[in-house]
Amino acid sequence: MAAATPNPLVAELIDRHQETLDRALAAIESRDYWTPYPEFPKAYGETGAADGQAAFDALLGSVFRIEGQPTNGDLVSGEASPYGIELGVSYPHAEADELIAALEAARPGWAAAGPAARAAVCLEILGRINARSHEFAQAVMHTTGQAYGMAFQAGGPHAQDRGLEAVAYAYAEQVRLPKSANWTKPQGKRDPLSMVKEFTVVPRGTALMIGCNTFPTWNGYPGLFASLATGNSVLVKPHPRAVLPLALTVRIAREVLTEAGFDPNLVCLAVEHEGGTIAATLAVRPEVKMIDYTGSTGFGDWLEDNARQAQVYTEKAGVNTVVLDSTDNYRGMLGNLAFALSLYSGQMCTTPQNLLIPRTGVRTDEGSKSYDEVVADLAGAIDGLLGDDARAAAVLGAVVNPGVLQRSVAAAGGEYGELALAPRVVASPEFPGATIRTPALVKADADKPDDRTAFLGECFGPVAFAVAVESTEAAVELLRRTVREQGAMTAGGYTVDEGVEDALVAACLDAGVSLSLNLTGGVYVNQTAAFSDLHGTGANPAANAAYCDGAFVASRFRTVEVRRHG
Amino acid sequence: MAAATPNPLVAELIDRHQETLDRALAAIESRDYWTPYPEFPKAYGETGAADGQAAFDALLGSVFRIEGQPTNGDLVSGEASPYGIELGVSYPHAEADELIAALEAARPGWAAAGPAARAAVCLEILGRINARSHEFAQAVMHTTGQAYGMAFQAGGPHAQDRGLEAVAYAYAEQVRLPKSANWTKPQGKRDPLSMVKEFTVVPRGTALMIGCNTFPTWNGYPGLFASLATGNSVLVKPHPRAVLPLALTVRIAREVLTEAGFDPNLVCLAVEHEGGTIAATLAVRPEVKMIDYTGSTGFGDWLEDNARQAQVYTEKAGVNTVVLDSTDNYRGMLGNLAFALSLYSGQMCTTPQNLLIPRTGVRTDEGSKSYDEVVADLAGAIDGLLGDDARAAAVLGAVVNPGVLQRSVAAAGGEYGELALAPRVVASPEFPGATIRTPALVKADADKPDDRTAFLGECFGPVAFAVAVESTEAAVELLRRTVREQGAMTAGGYTVDEGVEDALVAACLDAGVSLSLNLTGGVYVNQTAAFSDLHGTGANPAANAAYCDGAFVASRFRTVEVRRHG
Repeated sequence: MAAATPNPLVAELIDRHQETLDRALAAIESRDYWTPYPEFPKAYGETGAADGQAAFDALLGSVFRIEGQPTNGDLVSGEASPYGIELGVSYPHAEADELIAALEAARPGWAAAGPAARAAVCLEILGRINARSHEFAQAVMHTTGQAYGMAFQAGGPHAQDRGLEAVAYAYAEQVRLPKSANWTKPQGKRDPLSMVKEFTVVPRGTALMIGCNTFPTWNGYPGLFASLATGNSVLVKPHPRAVLPLALTVRIAREVLTEAGFDPNLVCLAVEHEGGTIAATLAVRPEVKMIDYTGSTGFGDWLEDNARQAQVYTEKAGVNTVVLDSTDNYRGMLGNLAFALSLYSGQMCTTPQNLLIPRTGVRTDEGSKSYDEVVADLAGAIDGLLGDDARAAAVLGAVVNPGVLQRSVAAAGGEYGELALAPRVVASPEFPGATIRTPALVKADADKPDDRTAFLGECFGPVAFAVAVESTEAAVELLRRTVREQGAMTAGGYTVDEGVEDALVAACLDAGVSLSLNLTGGVYVNQTAAFSDLHGTGANPAANAAYCDGAFVASRFRTVEVRRHG
Repeated sequence: MAAATPNPLVAELIDRHQETLDRALAAIESRDYWTPYPEFPKAYGETGAADGQAAFDALLGSVFRIEGQPTNGDLVSGEASPYGIELGVSYPHAEADELIAALEAARPGWAAAGPAARAAVCLEILGRINARSHEFAQAVMHTTGQAYGMAFQAGGPHAQDRGLEAVAYAYAEQVRLPKSANWTKPQGKRDPLSMVKEFTVVPRGTALMIGCNTFPTWNGYPGLFASLATGNSVLVKPHPRAVLPLALTVRIAREVLTEAGFDPNLVCLAVEHEGGTIAATLAVRPEVKMIDYTGSTGFGDWLEDNARQAQVYTEKAGVNTVVLDSTDNYRGMLGNLAFALSLYSGQMCTTPQNLLIPRTGVRTDEGSKSYDEVVADLAGAIDGLLGDDARAAAVLGAVVNPGVLQRSVAAAGGEYGELALAPRVVASPEFPGATIRTPALVKADADKPDDRTAFLGECFGPVAFAVAVESTEAAVELLRRTVREQGAMTAGGYTVDEGVEDALVAACLDAGVSLSLNLTGGVYVNQTAAFSDLHGTGANPAANAAYCDGAFVASRFRTVEVRRHG
């Protein structure tokens, strides 16, 4: 592991990004709002949106080559825009053996470069991604179905925030030990024992990042950058339906690595057809020491059980619950929930699925509301939010894939229970081929076994359950049990009663899920802000890790000590 | 998880131990020498040794009851002093179900107490253990075979140091996030979004600490205290031959917990006969979320493969190597190595096993020494060190168990190869029944397949190999390969050549083992100092974790966030 040939760009990058890194390090301690990546599309120049569109259009129908990466010559394609446009991008395929060999060979110089150089290179990669946020927004929109505004924010600056947050955590963790320390142990009247000790961070090996269909960048960047910043080589394996955003990411990472004098094969792309098994093949390779995965519980559990040689970080399925006890802002609550359920057609891992409503009613500033009234008012709020097709399309985005559409269809057919609100087909003014559905709101009774079976399984997509429960106490217990048994990424509660609030907090601490209380304004239970909010906890079955904490980065490297007498 | 009933002792303990905690937190950053627990036996009072002996004697032949812990009424015994004295201590047995139920029930109050209270309680436990270091020394001596001086230091203050180090890491990790933070996000001309966010540490569940035969406290305390300090309940499962030191530990922990108003069943003891399978039964219980294990590779691998529900920290077997290239202090090198090989009869996981000596000879301040000369001189140094039985016994201690004795016998019979130094039976002046053997030094040739088979397997105990290698370069490569394939807890090197030193460092960084260079005085490759040296790296097959770093503590708890508008 000889020191890398010094490249003048590395020193320049360290200098260029020092302030951003310092501010990120301060932000993860203070947890106040901060970002270096503006979330307003207009911040990216007057022609930013048009330039991004043009760059995206130029990719359509092309072969997305990755210079210098091994390939067997085959091409893979298969992405399908939920907006109905033809993408036609194809990607070079590579064999697992060749990819692993390239990743392993690329690592020594990067491992020797040290935490500061690696952080700076990662920030440069993120900076270049940020500058192309409009292009990424198009790529995210047409692979995930997110509406443009959301694809821009969640797929662009917010994803970059999560990447930067991971770099900051990784950097902080790597510099907790001094590079060199003097140790002097008194020996009574004899001379003290004295040593010089050097501590060097060493990477674990090759990391595998397995991307998801809905948030390829937002859910992909934490693991990708945490592994890269700690000296590992990273193999990016996108979901077959959401390759482009990560292919662009890999290309930019390789470009920066090359310029900075490192081997671009530190970051490689593994693409396969839908239904392929390369992820499973790669996951059990002895060289693969870290796996970051977002997706189904089935494959997540398989990875945890089978990739024993690797540190496995998973985010899987869960059932998110909101308890409605009481509120001093009934309209605000309804509006907030309507938006939370509608945003990206309920296709966020953080979208509430079950709204628990006591049969005894919900106390509000407009008087006590019965279960039926709350359900009707919520249905009305959703209808109001999504009444206009253009506005509905901007909130809902499009249905990401046929599996989700099937659940919307099943809900419409009454398969999950009586409908309080039927899904509606929305026409996109811009994309006639888009598949857009409003959420279904299903009525359920916590005390009916069939209903429980329906609402206690994850029903990913635009289907929510308004669950009648005996009392607030029963609702809190059902929340606790749901989180423990099914897992959850989020929990919400509405109450003006201190005792109920305490019970909700206690249940969430006990079951291990983060709680949003009384959201009635512009913050939604499904959204978390990097540098401030944790995404997931790692304490319930929905995920075994959180974005981002010490545990997410600390095992991605080890420290080797060299000691000698001083 | 309601707040625990405030107990006045908790506030007092926080106050009492604050300075020690602060100094420990500073020490793990500076890595300079520090300890609050004096390692000189005389620091513990004029009658300390006699009092410890009396306390130990009072335990002999007794039933070691643990008040308030579940038991099925059966008693377990089976410890055998390597010094030949009759111990006759028996311990109450308990069923796994009952133990787990008690541990689970005990946790809520402890989980709610918070990091500061937990750290203070842990420091009080360590403080009381420290005050009884002479008693622990007897218990460690007569279960592990360590000589009294070593049993006192390594089993007492040094083990306590490692426990305190783990508490400090655990505390630091738990307070990285603020308890509460304000988050204010500008919204252009509109009012900013504003939230208050609370971050609460929650434990993972029940931790299982599986102790080893040779260092029950030193290897046991890091995991025990790391898990306890992060809010978990801890089940201590000692090695059947080394129960007493951990039984004493559990009793003291329970005493402090009770006084501080916590449920003593937060720390329970699981004892079984040798050959029992309770560790395996407990390890796969769903409630067990952390396992700390020191012992054989076989069971360590089994745990890693089967205890999927738990975070598993293992320290297993390894083959430690020292490369002898050149030295400016030949006598110092020989003396240092002779002591390193002899200390506790080579029964440390950190004892060098293979000394790689170039056939081209070792350059020294006394001229170039051939392989044969080095081997003969080293044999002479060992003989010199251990020539006197009383002194030999004080260095060697006793052979810990029949398995180790068997290897000494095998070495004596030439089973591992030609002997440069035959093991010698040493009589203990104090303990006629003690089993004491000097190390065997076996000659081996790196280029002979039979020899390689012998010296590349772990040969735990008083057997070392003087391995002839073609050149220093070949020695460095053999070191690298040995670490990668067999694992190692330590590596050593002697060289005055800068190029060789660089190559040694590069090989150790690459293979993931810490390196001690040119030790010729009072520091030995087998010894690491808490707060300064890492024990293990977690980067090679000998161990998947290190004492102590962020990775050792960060996954023992999770953080739950509660947010609301401020």
